[in-house]
Amino acid sequence: MNRRGFLTGAGIAGAGLAVGGAAGAGITYALTADDSLDTADQSVPFYGPHQAGIITRQQNSLVFAAFDLKDTVTVDTLEVMLARWAAAASLLVEGKPVGPVESRPQSPPADTGEAFDLGPNLLTVTVGFGPTLFDDRLGLQSKMPSALKPLGQLAVDTTIDPTISGGDICIQACSEDPQVAFHAVRNLARIGRNVVTLRWLQEGFGRASATTTSQVTPRNLLGFKDGTANIKAEEPAVADEWVWVGDETDQAWMTGGSYLVTRKIRMHIEAWDSDDISDQERIFGRIKDSGAPLSGGEEFTDLDFAVKDSSGQTKIDRFSHVRLAHPDSNGGAQILRRGYNYTDGIDTRTGTLAAGLFFMAYQKNAHDQFARIQNNLAQDALNEYISPISSSLWAVPPGLKEIGDWYGKTMLGYRG
Amino acid sequence: MNRRGFLTGAGIAGAGLAVGGAAGAGITYALTADDSLDTADQSVPFYGPHQAGIITRQQNSLVFAAFDLKDTVTVDTLEVMLARWAAAASLLVEGKPVGPVESRPQSPPADTGEAFDLGPNLLTVTVGFGPTLFDDRLGLQSKMPSALKPLGQLAVDTTIDPTISGGDICIQACSEDPQVAFHAVRNLARIGRNVVTLRWLQEGFGRASATTTSQVTPRNLLGFKDGTANIKAEEPAVADEWVWVGDETDQAWMTGGSYLVTRKIRMHIEAWDSDDISDQERIFGRIKDSGAPLSGGEEFTDLDFAVKDSSGQTKIDRFSHVRLAHPDSNGGAQILRRGYNYTDGIDTRTGTLAAGLFFMAYQKNAHDQFARIQNNLAQDALNEYISPISSSLWAVPPGLKEIGDWYGKTMLGYRG
Repeated sequence: MNRRGFLTGAGIAGAGLAVGGAAGAGITYALTADDSLDTADQSVPFYGPHQAGIITRQQNSLVFAAFDLKDTVTVDTLEVMLARWAAAASLLVEGKPVGPVESRPQSPPADTGEAFDLGPNLLTVTVGFGPTLFDDRLGLQSKMPSALKPLGQLAVDTTIDPTISGGDICIQACSEDPQVAFHAVRNLARIGRNVVTLRWLQEGFGRASATTTSQVTPRNLLGFKDGTANIKAEEPAVADEWVWVGDETDQAWMTGGSYLVTRKIRMHIEAWDSDDISDQERIFGRIKDSGAPLSGGEEFTDLDFAVKDSSGQTKIDRFSHVRLAHPDSNGGAQILRRGYNYTDGIDTRTGTLAAGLFFMAYQKNAHDQFARIQNNLAQDALNEYISPISSSLWAVPPGLKEIGDWYGKTMLGYRG
Repeated sequence: MNRRGFLTGAGIAGAGLAVGGAAGAGITYALTADDSLDTADQSVPFYGPHQAGIITRQQNSLVFAAFDLKDTVTVDTLEVMLARWAAAASLLVEGKPVGPVESRPQSPPADTGEAFDLGPNLLTVTVGFGPTLFDDRLGLQSKMPSALKPLGQLAVDTTIDPTISGGDICIQACSEDPQVAFHAVRNLARIGRNVVTLRWLQEGFGRASATTTSQVTPRNLLGFKDGTANIKAEEPAVADEWVWVGDETDQAWMTGGSYLVTRKIRMHIEAWDSDDISDQERIFGRIKDSGAPLSGGEEFTDLDFAVKDSSGQTKIDRFSHVRLAHPDSNGGAQILRRGYNYTDGIDTRTGTLAAGLFFMAYQKNAHDQFARIQNNLAQDALNEYISPISSSLWAVPPGLKEIGDWYGKTMLGYRG
């Protein structure tokens, strides 16, 4: 009986399997053929109404980079870089080098080369703009969407490190192969080296959220399934309501885009690992192995906050993570989560693992969605075991429509 | 034309393909069916004459952890931990949790859970002992192999950070899935929490060496193929000569084991990326895209240090990496390389990428093999672009023979 079969009591893997769970309650999860495909030669379409890498089926590896503008940058040099990034990204996602290697012996190779023998591996490149891009340096103040106003210090934000937060521009590269994601960010950074400098960079692994209904719900480093109730790619009406910027925006260039919140959340792994299973499950509000809600049923059964145990307490604790994060506790607000697990080695001050969740969430308006939910989570029993150490907000413009389009073209093209 | 097909001028991938190269010279490489297998449900045998994870086909992800003994540890408590590690590792590599989750509500779960839904993913767990394990704390001085004498400061070792070097015990976990490798180290660390503390931990990706003839030679972050001439699993006579400890050892418990050198090598990525392709190739001694030696032929063609160009210079530079590292320059010495690429984000002092190679090499005797080659590499033209920041030597005991065997049982069992 291996881990994959552990929950079912058998080593069976099949498509859309509904099986009895080891914990007594039946559970349903989907192991589809997609989970076992060779993805090396598969690519994600680059052009479209939305940037890829948002509602796209979540890949296994992340490299996320935040950049600051150099002092000498003008709108013109920024535009040229963003156009070069668009051209390069359109090649990278097809598994092509960004330029020839051997053509000019007395010049550096156009592509750094470490992904030459690797396929596209479902690479997506997603570009966003931070609030500071719209300050007075470039004169873009009038292009700033009101929804990009910084979130400020949320209730739990006592441990944010500004050196790994914020930035003028970001790149999210996701791929099934970490080397392909790294290669993309490195080559884009290199193309932009006269315009931007790296501010911070984060690697992630293990796709901490399912973004399609065919993905088995992955687990965070607390060992719990994360994202069972996430917005899924197969629910376009839900995405239109909660993910994509629409007519409500005060900046037309953001229509079809989305707002990205990134949060690096350090988990206190050793303390968590010493906590009783019953307490862990009370804090989350779900059974650890099956992911079923404590109110009963299977992983995908709706939560029932009214069901009580024999002592008269609700089976799902009032301060549990699932209850406080639930749309019913937040005026219906939902977000598209796209987080990754991370480890940075050890915290040399304490000898503990420096690991946790690089949380990412896309939404129509982060003030109405993420911030509302996060402020509700100020009471979350989980807060004893986690500390946010980075927090950023990004405006992710809509997709590139065709060859010749580039990130922010509409926004920059409107400048007066 | 994608990256995989880039070298061949076509998007073809097949088994054992020999094709003409884009750079003019024909190249040969092997893309076998193995490269595209779903590995989630595959496992590597645990018991055998040698530990797995050495000559095993290199997996895509690494988590390497170094531990120090706690002050209160005795040989007995160490033995118990190593026995528990062996039992746990034998389950982990089969994709099983290290213990039940839900059996005792008032206890922490035996397994941390983040790999429940993941298969074995070719996980290997390899355990080694550092020189300091044999100091006077445990009274194991008489069990110290002479080959485990520390390597000391090698010619290029001016930038070694002792806080990320050395340690009493190490675990190398390799898997096709980074979450599976992380889960293994985390759970072993947890099992050992009363005996050892984490000293340092390193993640790696991208298998920077091929260890079987069927693996396409991977690339390091300098963009060059690395390990074309590596010792391969299909060459058992070469492994017997250069990798496995034999009768020459002064400590019988190491027979069938191997000595592991780990080196974290920071690459000065931005400087390298600004260097001309012709200079990069002179430094390595190979063509960047095909991996063919500058003396001619294809990737796997033997190097010819005598071939000269029209100006009378040897085509392979005297100070090139391939020449200085070649067995002919080192009394025939070979090592089994098993390195991984890494990135730690950015170096905040310089705003540059903190990335490079976590070099690992196995051998019969690191003084005669790695240290000899490394000292020869003191003249390596590549040194301008790399800095070693960590260096360690480990004695990796032989394989576990059967259930009930554990790491170091023979060594500890012989104590007087």
